[in-house]
Amino acid sequence: MGKILSSPNFSEGSSPQILEEIVSLARNKKNVKLIDYSSDADHNRSVVSIIGEAEAVIEVLLEMSRKAVSLINLNNHKGQHPRCGAIDVIPLIPLQGISLEECVRIAHKLGERLAEELGLPVYFYGEAAFREERRDLSDVRRGGLEAMAEDMRQGKRLPDIGPPSPHPTAGCVIVGVRDFLVAFNVNLATSNLDIARRIASLVRERGGGLVGVKALGIDLPSRGKVQVSMNITMPLKTPLYRVLELVKLEAKRYGVEVESTEIVGPVPLKVLIETLSYYLSLRDFKIEQIVDIHI
Amino acid sequence: MGKILSSPNFSEGSSPQILEEIVSLARNKKNVKLIDYSSDADHNRSVVSIIGEAEAVIEVLLEMSRKAVSLINLNNHKGQHPRCGAIDVIPLIPLQGISLEECVRIAHKLGERLAEELGLPVYFYGEAAFREERRDLSDVRRGGLEAMAEDMRQGKRLPDIGPPSPHPTAGCVIVGVRDFLVAFNVNLATSNLDIARRIASLVRERGGGLVGVKALGIDLPSRGKVQVSMNITMPLKTPLYRVLELVKLEAKRYGVEVESTEIVGPVPLKVLIETLSYYLSLRDFKIEQIVDIHI
Repeated sequence: MGKILSSPNFSEGSSPQILEEIVSLARNKKNVKLIDYSSDADHNRSVVSIIGEAEAVIEVLLEMSRKAVSLINLNNHKGQHPRCGAIDVIPLIPLQGISLEECVRIAHKLGERLAEELGLPVYFYGEAAFREERRDLSDVRRGGLEAMAEDMRQGKRLPDIGPPSPHPTAGCVIVGVRDFLVAFNVNLATSNLDIARRIASLVRERGGGLVGVKALGIDLPSRGKVQVSMNITMPLKTPLYRVLELVKLEAKRYGVEVESTEIVGPVPLKVLIETLSYYLSLRDFKIEQIVDIHI
Repeated sequence: MGKILSSPNFSEGSSPQILEEIVSLARNKKNVKLIDYSSDADHNRSVVSIIGEAEAVIEVLLEMSRKAVSLINLNNHKGQHPRCGAIDVIPLIPLQGISLEECVRIAHKLGERLAEELGLPVYFYGEAAFREERRDLSDVRRGGLEAMAEDMRQGKRLPDIGPPSPHPTAGCVIVGVRDFLVAFNVNLATSNLDIARRIASLVRERGGGLVGVKALGIDLPSRGKVQVSMNITMPLKTPLYRVLELVKLEAKRYGVEVESTEIVGPVPLKVLIETLSYYLSLRDFKIEQIVDIHI
């Protein structure tokens, strides 16, 4: 029925054992390939990326979710990244041989099973949103689990399906269908969180920055640094080099250098080549010249 | 018997018709894939890249060579790039499931057939060289066809196999086995050829520059520019960014800017990611994060 990509985010980034228990469920599965996973202790968050036949991917997502509910207790959770659930977000991205509409149907089916089988309140976002005001993930999750729980108590911000209050240990889950985005973090050579927050507010779309860019300033105490953590929702329109150079430009006002950058999870080859071409002033390059895609 | 890559160079870069007649022989062939071709009118040279089963690749190379001999007359040839034949160089690169030794045997067989069937004097270079002093392509071709013809008349620099004088219209051919190299050209925003030559002489290994880099200064009259045309023979050891930044560094002495760069023919993905990582200060990136290699 077609191939999809999914990069579920789990609210656990400091225990390799827990991550391994979850990730192992995606290994050696028929019609599903584990392509990447990574954790960040400061975010206290892990991203696992799998590709495969839509139905097989959904089964693996359910297995991983069941495991996450049993292992992750949000009541003890501390982390720099906003979150609302043990399985925080499950985005589905149509890849090949599947329409957006089919993908949305699959997302809704997945949501129903997460509500029924695991007792989670489920919100739909992106193309799978039931309501216009829930298209944007950050609107759905605003304030994190605490704010959502409080809203629910007052009969507001109720989930699209599932119980009208958070799961006692696993919170809520947000399921959606979206296009490719690139998670791009720029680490600054300073421990001043205000600077990261200020830069984040300037480079993101909402702050007069680049179109399709969402940005947060995040503390990385374990590394003694701060980070501008971004989602680039239209990475072919707003290329990485423009995002990085704009962060550098703003960082200069504070005399702060970029220490390093990170791409978290999957990224399309075209996005990388676009940025490489900029830095090399490369002309007339064709993806077909890359030997690896032919072997 | 294993996969190889070959990027034969033809001494014709201004006639799309002739190139098409040659290239079309690599299209729709069983077990051979045409991955790229490009021409440069100033170099008056085309590079065609094919990948496939070794034996099938050899047959396509012979067909293309036969066509090139019938269509390209070196007596009328003008171009900025050193050359010695209608089919100037045929490099074979072992890719998968084939040893270096097997690849060398195949190169020798190909050379024999080029001598017998097309009457070309054949030189072997790289891993296929019969003599140590012919390992380096630029030593074999030094001075171009004119110098080689003169040497042959004096009984010197005779071919490894085939007739002891150039083919009347198609010159000689140089066949070899080598590792991956990246053909990387840096175009300078000046028409002063001396500057390109000076920079070439400084960045190449022979001139105290970067290890494994060969470089020539070449005029691009049709574009009103000059070019530092390079072969990077160990592209994982000497990455593109270091080469480009060194050219920029030397160009600065002349107040000359880099206008653009070109990668000609095939390039391994790892080489591109290495250079991208440098410019982005990217850490912990894994090739597996690139979605395209999984679909």
